[in-house]
Formats: sequence, C-alpha cells, structure tokens
Amino acid sequence: MYEENLTSKISKLIISSDPLINGTAIENAKIAFIDYLAVTFAVSNYNNIEVFNNILKESKDKNSIKVIGKGFKTDSLNSALYNGFLGHYLDFDDVHEESRSHPSVVIFPALLSLSLHRKYTFYEFLSAYVVGVETMVKLTKALGDNHYNKGWHNTSTIGVIAASAASSYLLKSSKDQVATALGIAATTASGLRLQFGTEVKPLHAGLSSRSGVFAAQISLNNIKGSREVFDSQNNYLDVYSDFPMREKLIESWGEPWAITSPGLWFKKYPCCSASYHAIDAIKSILKKAIVKIDDIEFIEVIYPPGGDEALIYKTPQTPQQGKFSVEYIIAKCLVDGDVTINTFNGNSIDGEIGSLMSKIRRVYDPTIKPEKDAIPQKRFTIIKLKLKDKMLESRVDYPLGSSKKPLTKGEVIQKFELISKNKDLLLKEILDSNEMTLLQSIYNKI
Amino acid sequence: MYEENLTSKISKLIISSDPLINGTAIENAKIAFIDYLAVTFAVSNYNNIEVFNNILKESKDKNSIKVIGKGFKTDSLNSALYNGFLGHYLDFDDVHEESRSHPSVVIFPALLSLSLHRKYTFYEFLSAYVVGVETMVKLTKALGDNHYNKGWHNTSTIGVIAASAASSYLLKSSKDQVATALGIAATTASGLRLQFGTEVKPLHAGLSSRSGVFAAQISLNNIKGSREVFDSQNNYLDVYSDFPMREKLIESWGEPWAITSPGLWFKKYPCCSASYHAIDAIKSILKKAIVKIDDIEFIEVIYPPGGDEALIYKTPQTPQQGKFSVEYIIAKCLVDGDVTINTFNGNSIDGEIGSLMSKIRRVYDPTIKPEKDAIPQKRFTIIKLKLKDKMLESRVDYPLGSSKKPLTKGEVIQKFELISKNKDLLLKEILDSNEMTLLQSIYNKI
Repeated sequence: MYEENLTSKISKLIISSDPLINGTAIENAKIAFIDYLAVTFAVSNYNNIEVFNNILKESKDKNSIKVIGKGFKTDSLNSALYNGFLGHYLDFDDVHEESRSHPSVVIFPALLSLSLHRKYTFYEFLSAYVVGVETMVKLTKALGDNHYNKGWHNTSTIGVIAASAASSYLLKSSKDQVATALGIAATTASGLRLQFGTEVKPLHAGLSSRSGVFAAQISLNNIKGSREVFDSQNNYLDVYSDFPMREKLIESWGEPWAITSPGLWFKKYPCCSASYHAIDAIKSILKKAIVKIDDIEFIEVIYPPGGDEALIYKTPQTPQQGKFSVEYIIAKCLVDGDVTINTFNGNSIDGEIGSLMSKIRRVYDPTIKPEKDAIPQKRFTIIKLKLKDKMLESRVDYPLGSSKKPLTKGEVIQKFELISKNKDLLLKEILDSNEMTLLQSIYNKI
Repeated sequence: MYEENLTSKISKLIISSDPLINGTAIENAKIAFIDYLAVTFAVSNYNNIEVFNNILKESKDKNSIKVIGKGFKTDSLNSALYNGFLGHYLDFDDVHEESRSHPSVVIFPALLSLSLHRKYTFYEFLSAYVVGVETMVKLTKALGDNHYNKGWHNTSTIGVIAASAASSYLLKSSKDQVATALGIAATTASGLRLQFGTEVKPLHAGLSSRSGVFAAQISLNNIKGSREVFDSQNNYLDVYSDFPMREKLIESWGEPWAITSPGLWFKKYPCCSASYHAIDAIKSILKKAIVKIDDIEFIEVIYPPGGDEALIYKTPQTPQQGKFSVEYIIAKCLVDGDVTINTFNGNSIDGEIGSLMSKIRRVYDPTIKPEKDAIPQKRFTIIKLKLKDKMLESRVDYPLGSSKKPLTKGEVIQKFELISKNKDLLLKEILDSNEMTLLQSIYNKI
C-alpha cells in the first residue's frame, strides 16, 4: 500500500530528480541565488533589527554559519532562521506566481545551513534548490486557491515542505527518509496572512526554513514518523485546503521545471508583488503627463473581484504596512516619482501621503475581462487618475518582473551591484564557478 | 478599537491573573510539576532516543539548561524542545479533559527554560503554569470540537499559545507584548494527529514549547507583530476551526481556574487516555473471573459513535503505535494482567498478541446513553468478552485518573518514586518550598 501512495510517489520523484540535464534550470537557479544574496545583504543597512538580541546566540562552534550582512555566526539551524528572516525582511525577494509565494528565502537559507561545512558541488546545491521550487509549486497546485484564501501564508505553510525536500535531496536521503521528512515538515506547517505588513511575515520565512532543514536532518537520524502525510485520514492536503486536488501533487514533475516555466519573478520594488501592476500603471502615467499632486481630485484603482486580496491595508499606519497597501504605494510613487527601499523606511506616514491616500479608492469590476495571458492569471489593475482638467488612465495585465516581462540576468546583477557596491568580482565567481568553496569566500565578503 | 478587541481582552486577563489567591490552584500545579518530572525522567531508561544526535548541540554556555534525565545541557530554547519531547515521549503525562490535550509537557519546559537562571519565586513559576493551563482550556472551548476533529493535535496547536501566555506572564510582559506574543505563537501553531503513534507526536510538544517561549521572548524585544490574532480577518479562530465560539475565549476566566475544576488527569498508564475506560473494564473483569487466553472467542469494544477517535490504530505495526490502539492495549492487558511502561517497549508485536488482537472488534452503538457525568463528556466503553462457556461484561463511563476518579497526591508521588527510586528527598523539597533555587538542586539530581 505504502509503495502506491502519494507520499511514496512524490518522495521517489524528489530523490530521482536530475535538474542538471536542463542547463536553463541551473542557470535560473544561479540568478535566483544572486538575487537572494542581494536582497538579504540589503537589510544590513538597517540598524534597528534587534528582535533576536539575547535570544539567538552568536556561536563560535566550527560548524556555525555566518548571518548574511552581519559580523557574526550562529549555529547552523538558527542560521536558516536568521538568513530566511533577513532575506524576506524587505519583501524584495523573488516570487513564483504559480505558488503565490517566495521560494528562495525559505529554500536557500536551509541549503546554506547544510552546505558551508560539507563537500557538495555548487551544482548539487543548485539542483537541490530546483527540486525545492518544484515541490513548492506542485504542493500549491494540489492545495488549490482555497489554501491561500483561507488565510494561510504559502511561503511558510508550503515553503517548509519545499525546504525539507530540497534539504533531503542535498543530504542524499533515502526515499523513506524523504517521506518521513515531508511528514515532519508538514506537521510544522504554519503561518497566517494576518501577519502581513509586520516583522512577523519575514519571520515566517526564517522559521519555515529552519523547520524544513530540521525535518530533513532528524529523518536522517531515523526518527519514526508517518510516511503517509499526503494519504492518511486528515492528511496535510485535507487539513490545509477545503478543495485539494490530490493528483496535481505529482503531475508533470520537472516537465518542465517550474523554475524555467513560467520561471521566477525577480522584484524591482521592495513591496508586495500584487502592487506591481499599479506601480507600472502610475509610472506609465507619469511618463506621459505631468501630474501636480495638488491637482489630483481622486484616483480609482480597478481590480477584478478579489484581485487585491494580498493588499490587506487600505489605511496603513506604518511604512512597513505600506508594503501591502496599494494606496500607500501609489501615493509615494506619485510624490517621489519611483518606488525604492527608501519608500518604506521610517516609523510613521507623513501628512501629505496620508492626505493623498484618502483620495484613492479601490473598485471591483467583474465585467472587465483580464487578458488571456494575464499574470497572475485573472488579474489586472486599471488606474484612473482624475485631475482638475482631465482623466489619466493606464491598465496593466502583467507587470515588470513577471514572467512575461522578466528582469534580465543583467538587471538582477545590476540590482545586486546597486545594493552591495563593489561586489562585481563575487558575481563573476558565482556565475562562472562550480566550486562550493566560493560560498566560503562569499561569506567572508558579505 | 484595539482596546475593545478579544486579543486585547485576553492579554489583559493574562497579565492581571493572580492564581496565588487560590491555594488549591497552586497545590495542584505543584502536583502537576512532580508528575511532569516523573514522566520525563522515566524516559532516561530508554537508550535508543538518538533523533537529535548531531543536531541539538550540547552547550556549556552559562545560560544553558540541563535536559532532564540526561547528563548534558543545551541552550535555553532547545531545552524547551528537548524537555517537551521527552516529557511526552511515553504518553504518560497529564491530560486536561476540557482541552483534550496535554498541558504540562508544553508549558513546564517553556517555563523551565526561562527560570533556571533568573530570580523568580517558585510561586511565580507555578502561577505562570496555572495561567498557561487556563489559556489552553479557554482556547479549546473557543475553537470547539471541530478543531480536533479536523485533524489538529491540540497539545501542539493550542499548547504553543498557552506556553507563550505562561512565559509572558513569568517574564512580566506588558499587555501589548502579550498580545504580540499570542499572535506570534498562533502563527506558528501546527501539529497533525496523523503523527499519533509515532515519535513525531512527542516532538510536537517540544516544538510548541520552544515556539511558545520564543514568541514571548521576541515580543519582549519589541518585534512588530499583529495584535489582532483573534480578531482580524482570517484570524486564528476562524482558520483553525469551522465553528469557533469566540466569546468563550474570555468567559469566566479563573472562575474557577481550570486546573482546579475539573482539574488535571494524571495518568496511571503510558498510553492514550481514550483507552483508559477499556483498561479499567478489562481489569475489572480480570478481578472477577479467570480468563484463559485460549478460551477467548471474541471481544467487543462498544463505543458511542466517534468515541474512539483518538485510537487511530486498529492493526498497529509497533508497540509505539499500540499506545493508540485499544486492540493492542486490551490484548496486552489480558496476557500480562496489567499495563505498564514495558507494555509498549520493543520494536515489534509478537504473534500471541497479534492473534488475540484479531479477535477484538469495535462496535458503535448510538442507542446506549452515556452517563450524564461521563468523562470525557458523552463517552463510555463497554467490553463484552466471550469465552467458550460464558460472556463477561464491564462498562466504564469515567476511568481511573479522570477528575471523578483522580489519582491522589499520594499516588502521583508514588508514581514518581517508582520511576526515580531514591528521590523522596527531592519531593519533600518541592512540596515544602517556595525557593526557586530548589530547581537547580533538582536539576543536579535528575
């Protein structure tokens, strides 16, 4: 029976994966890694992250791992927590639109915690990442939209299982050990969307990364756990979704790899990707016309019903909440002309922005059809900006960064260089090398 | 608005609690602590628990905490994980029937991780525990039966919030810090019942204990998190239950304390408490008649519909799974005459037990009325044991250990002494003292 069950089948797919046969998958994984390093390192400009003080201890143990952008190391499991938290802190990290989540900040910290003191090749490291992303997307499809809609944060609830799959792959676990690891990861799956716009959202990424690698490790120690996590009564899929589609879990595994098609969405702006359509629309309006803030009478942001679900703050109280507020993002973009890391700095929202935000309203129009190839599917954003003397309008169905208008490899490298300054040598090393030792050298530099 | 919301109200109840005014509550907490120490120490007889090898490191840091029954210390957060895991390993720890869970193995390890290097009185420690149990029971009532029935493991999914409440109380957090801690604990709430009968079930207790104390600690560092975890859209109660009863969260707080009424259920046998009715029934039959195994034709175990939900194994493959199998427990009790720690040792089930198990069948009879004061409510177990020449029958509506037939203080002490041998001096210290320093001395001995 076990041989025939879903858990057994996906475990077998995981251990038999060979992403190396697809050059694009590995190349994309390298770009994802550069982007992950960039957005994680970017946080070191912030001095105010003190939430782990006196809790996560510095470690001088020989197996400890450096926290990116910080001058100290911590033990390997907690490095996954810390590097996942920092990686997601700015909401500047990559997105996979089919999984409605952020794969890299959960998977890379887990793999880094395992890699820096062991002998893996860089290709093995990247292959494990590809397998993690694949697991994440298949699980999302099997859970269906209901999972996210009920209030779960996919990055965390699904990411933990993806991180355990990637870690198990790297550790060369047996099929049974993988099945056990998936079961342990799933039984630690948590993360509520009500934490969006707070520092606990990035914490989800770190906690899930740590739980994922922990699940893989204790399975290697042969802990006795369920190997029927996707099959038993009250299994993961049934508990976390009202309408799971079980067969999708193992459908078309690696054909093609989710990281190549549709591929990852690298972020141009450090805020919720659901706001990207609106940013593009506003910037396109600003290119064509001069907009005086005082002349704005009102702004309508038109969505299909539910198209703004991730943008949970209509009247944000802090710039941090503003990352999930289309009102805040539009107002700042109009006043500053662009959206950057600075857009979300500070502890309060100033009066001019507050006043402009109050002129913005969301409208849901079920009669407008999204383009067939809209990204994400069935979504669009239309901005109608009413000035005293005219109405400006712009519509976006797939924004900059998404798979139809992706950031190029060059633009990701530029993003890294902008953040890290003189780190071009490092990038060349990452792109050209198959040596795992380069990770040590990266870690000495960032 | 925040001042009026449920999260704010329960946070206020938590910080204003004063269980010291009720001598019984504190006395019961002391007995619970003795029982927790006993069942955790009991595991040290097992040599085969190697799941944390090379993962949770020994720590010689001055703030590290000893793992109970082991000869080493680990860092304070991981001590909560380890001591929670060991505490629940034998399923020999206490139960609160109204919360359908095991409060002590989640709450005590969290409190111990905070207490051994700080200056709290023993009464403060015990008061925090009483507040944790209270939180656990109120949350269970607010979630309703649907939570457990959907497949969640209350000890873990609810325990993590209880542990954060208890920890925050001990740390003297502000109301806002408690609200934040509850939100962080809730967003890490996980644990699936499909892991019952595996080593991952006790792991749930440890993970939740660690997450609970972690939530309390990072809230003290003023992490920015939601303070509306029981109020916002897609809040904890709505996500984790289809039929929550919100108002029950704050109803009759401490009036009386849940630890005094109905009080805790201390376990006589190291297995699922849902099997206790059957054990009592079998032992009562064995007292009255001589039962030759070979003469048994069949055994019927009669429940009200759903009364055996926690007993998920009808044909267990290991003695560990047997802890959740009424078939295994009845068969062993008939052959050995009693149920003890040894009942569940070993890696396989022998032929005689297997053969006897195959003669046992579960029957659900909705026409039989449970006694009005059955424990748990609406449950009973009837055993009909058919021998060649006669039928023996016994019915139990509230088993030994439950609040209507509780183990006495003396019996809990006896349980401790049986397990720990020459530790009577220690018990006297616990019962007589208000000195927190005694914990250090306990830790040197166990």
